Amino acid sequence: MTSKGTSTAKHRAGRFFEDFRLGQVIRHGTPRTITDGDAAVYTALTGSRHVTHSSAVVARELGFESRPIDDLLLFNMAFGKTVPDISLNAIANLGYAEARFLNPVFAGNTLHCESVVIGLRENSNGRSGIVYVRSTCYREDSHAVLSWVRWVMVHKAVHKTAQKTAHAADSTTSARDQHVPDLLDHIAPNLLVACARLLSAEALENLREATGSADVWDDYAIGERIDHPSGATIEEAEHMMATRLYQNNARPHFDALAMQHTPTGRRLVYGGHTMSVCRSLAYDGLENVLGVLAINGGTHVAPTVGGDTLYAYSEVLDKWKLPGRADVGALRLRLVGLKNLAPTEVPGARTRHEDGTTGWHPAVVLDLDYTVAMPRRPNGRTRAE
Amino acid sequence: MTSKGTSTAKHRAGRFFEDFRLGQVIRHGTPRTITDGDAAVYTALTGSRHVTHSSAVVARELGFESRPIDDLLLFNMAFGKTVPDISLNAIANLGYAEARFLNPVFAGNTLHCESVVIGLRENSNGRSGIVYVRSTCYREDSHAVLSWVRWVMVHKAVHKTAQKTAHAADSTTSARDQHVPDLLDHIAPNLLVACARLLSAEALENLREATGSADVWDDYAIGERIDHPSGATIEEAEHMMATRLYQNNARPHFDALAMQHTPTGRRLVYGGHTMSVCRSLAYDGLENVLGVLAINGGTHVAPTVGGDTLYAYSEVLDKWKLPGRADVGALRLRLVGLKNLAPTEVPGARTRHEDGTTGWHPAVVLDLDYTVAMPRRPNGRTRAE
Amino acid sequence: MTSKGTSTAKHRAGRFFEDFRLGQVIRHGTPRTITDGDAAVYTALTGSRHVTHSSAVVARELGFESRPIDDLLLFNMAFGKTVPDISLNAIANLGYAEARFLNPVFAGNTLHCESVVIGLRENSNGRSGIVYVRSTCYREDSHAVLSWVRWVMVHKAVHKTAQKTAHAADSTTSARDQHVPDLLDHIAPNLLVACARLLSAEALENLREATGSADVWDDYAIGERIDHPSGATIEEAEHMMATRLYQNNARPHFDALAMQHTPTGRRLVYGGHTMSVCRSLAYDGLENVLGVLAINGGTHVAPTVGGDTLYAYSEVLDKWKLPGRADVGALRLRLVGLKNLAPTEVPGARTRHEDGTTGWHPAVVLDLDYTVAMPRRPNGRTRAE
Repeated sequence: MTSKGTSTAKHRAGRFFEDFRLGQVIRHGTPRTITDGDAAVYTALTGSRHVTHSSAVVARELGFESRPIDDLLLFNMAFGKTVPDISLNAIANLGYAEARFLNPVFAGNTLHCESVVIGLRENSNGRSGIVYVRSTCYREDSHAVLSWVRWVMVHKAVHKTAQKTAHAADSTTSARDQHVPDLLDHIAPNLLVACARLLSAEALENLREATGSADVWDDYAIGERIDHPSGATIEEAEHMMATRLYQNNARPHFDALAMQHTPTGRRLVYGGHTMSVCRSLAYDGLENVLGVLAINGGTHVAPTVGGDTLYAYSEVLDKWKLPGRADVGALRLRLVGLKNLAPTEVPGARTRHEDGTTGWHPAVVLDLDYTVAMPRRPNGRTRAE
Repeated sequence: MTSKGTSTAKHRAGRFFEDFRLGQVIRHGTPRTITDGDAAVYTALTGSRHVTHSSAVVARELGFESRPIDDLLLFNMAFGKTVPDISLNAIANLGYAEARFLNPVFAGNTLHCESVVIGLRENSNGRSGIVYVRSTCYREDSHAVLSWVRWVMVHKAVHKTAQKTAHAADSTTSARDQHVPDLLDHIAPNLLVACARLLSAEALENLREATGSADVWDDYAIGERIDHPSGATIEEAEHMMATRLYQNNARPHFDALAMQHTPTGRRLVYGGHTMSVCRSLAYDGLENVLGVLAINGGTHVAPTVGGDTLYAYSEVLDKWKLPGRADVGALRLRLVGLKNLAPTEVPGARTRHEDGTTGWHPAVVLDLDYTVAMPRRPNGRTRAE
Repeated sequence: MTSKGTSTAKHRAGRFFEDFRLGQVIRHGTPRTITDGDAAVYTALTGSRHVTHSSAVVARELGFESRPIDDLLLFNMAFGKTVPDISLNAIANLGYAEARFLNPVFAGNTLHCESVVIGLRENSNGRSGIVYVRSTCYREDSHAVLSWVRWVMVHKAVHKTAQKTAHAADSTTSARDQHVPDLLDHIAPNLLVACARLLSAEALENLREATGSADVWDDYAIGERIDHPSGATIEEAEHMMATRLYQNNARPHFDALAMQHTPTGRRLVYGGHTMSVCRSLAYDGLENVLGVLAINGGTHVAPTVGGDTLYAYSEVLDKWKLPGRADVGALRLRLVGLKNLAPTEVPGARTRHEDGTTGWHPAVVLDLDYTVAMPRRPNGRTRAE
């Protein structure tokens, strides 16, 4: 385009399926300096109580220079950067995988993100396709702090008559562009970055006192389930404030009028807010978590809307020692978020329906598979109580 | 009053029309240290995404010592200081003019304000009058950061029986006190303060990458209209939190019970919150705005209440080069805020009614005339895309 | 318990009456670094305008190193730490006494709390008992910043069948454990810590200008009543955000579904939020308060729920000179919080009912007896006006 000084096309329509190419690198806008203010708003909106993020004194005892920003605040902040370029025209956010927390983020750091298109698959109806991207979030010092894969179903522009001409040449993604990436079932223990330095026995005792819980890595058994006792009713003002805090401008969360014409008829709670609230509910019973190491996979099973009450239970999927670390181990957890039904009423996330098929229990809204770091009991010591 | 140690009149009733005098200087209370916390709450409540305020890295590249506080956060914070002295008894906020942003404000600055009465006009009904004030907001280092004119319709105290005696001597404003000030149609380009240093071509490219938009000053044409795509439904909790953040204690925003006896029957959204939300909606299409230079005029056409969905469109009213600056130009914009109707349904802010008269389109709530700074394309370069 | 590496009891049920022992010391979890972000969220949720907390410039003139954190933000933050250990199974929070503000807290301080059980009394029904604790909040430098007594009615575990076995041996608190502590009617003037340095006449004038009010200690008379003019309607999102900001996880504030089966059928507003909102309403008429010195007693008379509109009036109960301070005096105030009725409609907090008995006026929700510091007029000077 020549520099003729005039443009009449300042509508920001977002990318359609044809606008993505395998290997394409997209640098996302709106870099963000994250502050103690963001952390305070996050606490007020989600009820986060994990001590690593709550106390600078504890954080320094764990080897951090200061309180690291809450993992899911970071995740949501980074995710928000990618929305205008990846999912503004998304029909659905289909899943997450391979999220790794690589370095801590502190108040004052400035974050920016970029994504690479790692998979494309056109749907057989010809109207939409699935886009897979690997996104990476960086600090201003160029250290990567978080990377993750997500895939979304996106409209094809050609399906929108008004924009037919502009995109006509691109209306079919060529066969060689079709690619579904192989994704890891989970991040292997040798790839996990335990974010604290070696814990002394004294630091461990201080941590237990700070959390009020004696339970450490050794006290959790594979297969164990923890029903978290609290519930949280979600207000419209809360989920919108959270989503705006992340500068995530996806429209279904904000415009009640436009949403009247959708199946729910309502604004939808941003799935990342549901994740944050459920993880805060999951504090009780998992107090000594030091931080999230990975998100192995995640599915937003059903929408949440204002007025819903969220509950959560956790299952221990696996537990690993970490290479070179006698002080800290990894727990692979499944966090199941429920709406309007307490965990005690939900035997499992999957259930057999009346017609004999198996599917999601109707109360499930979130199924998150993630890995956390937790201190191990020093050798030969018995559990303090 | 002698020092007798007792007072029984601690009711803070605010000033009535008779309490104002031409030339009177009023120093406003509640100085405020503005922080990163205020900026975070503002982002959560309004969805602000302008990169100058979002990223300390970008702000420093633009020549600021750090992220300047969002212009409208500053405006609302300063405005809030003046409410207890100017508009606690206001019947209506009639308009703004001549607002100039003179110096940036950073987290840690402490703001205080004073006002001069520059106009008074008693209404013919003898019950109220219009007060014009020029208010100035200062940093703790005595630099002015913002000045503006507003005019409000204020009750006369004499009209209130209970307070008749105290104000009897003042019940009529003397004729020589009547004065309607001449106000500028707009702040002329030579009075605009472009708040960033000279931009290098590299800084401009970094900015465009940070915003994700290539459009700069040269790409906007006088008369161009931009329909911003998003809408925002306003919750009661949100507008009250914003108004309290500004320490604005005007009662119509907070007391649902008392407001039952007013025409709307509802709490009213503070007009400054409507401005902030509409400006955040106007980000899409105006991404490379560096900051607000002036508010030439503004009218709150109709009230907004909780549950309304706001939309916005912008018109380019004028564009100017700035004296001595080849890197940055000024755009004079009209921001039209709408409630419960998308911009595509609103041909213009003014409309011809069925009875042949012309008036506001019924969806319009805000008509704001303001001037922003935007980078110019370096000579001879074509638009990057 | 031996270290067998597995636990299936990670339900955090909180303490029951039998779990408390006279003299027992409980160290509370979740230490918290308090920040400017917390202060900003507090301002947005409560409308706090006290200048000591609002302006770093004024705070430094008063001898503080920076803006101290708002007294009731500190109180609520500290209180929140004690909830999981003291009142998670509380039937009712019965009262406060002997709260003393001992040292200021600034952004960056990290707070932690501990409690001592100072009283136990089993109820005659054998199902519950009253627990009295003295709690103390410390900064990271081990200086105590706040101590207070509260008493709560707590369920006995034995009353819960499922937990009968574990607690059987403890099912009756032994007679010698029964003890009701003597509590002070109020904190005596010689125990009050005035938190500002000696005020010069110039600092006093600057303070008056900063607050916009000339009224100081000398201007308040014992018995004087101040009806505060503003009202504040409480939204569900607001009280939940405030309570989460304090990391107070008491369930009645958050879970609308579970609360359907309670007498109110609704989420309850955390009493500390009601206190904070009422104190913010009480700013008008008490502008020159420098800080809270003590809370002598407090009762949450009736629950507040979302949608209620709060009002407040204050009474001057007493006034004292402070030992060694000619510049600052103490006012003992009664803050009466009302719901859905303006103070002008409420002759007194106590009222004679139709049946001849005396009780609370039905609009009263809060009756708080507290002591504040306020500047005194310099000797011989008359009131500036």
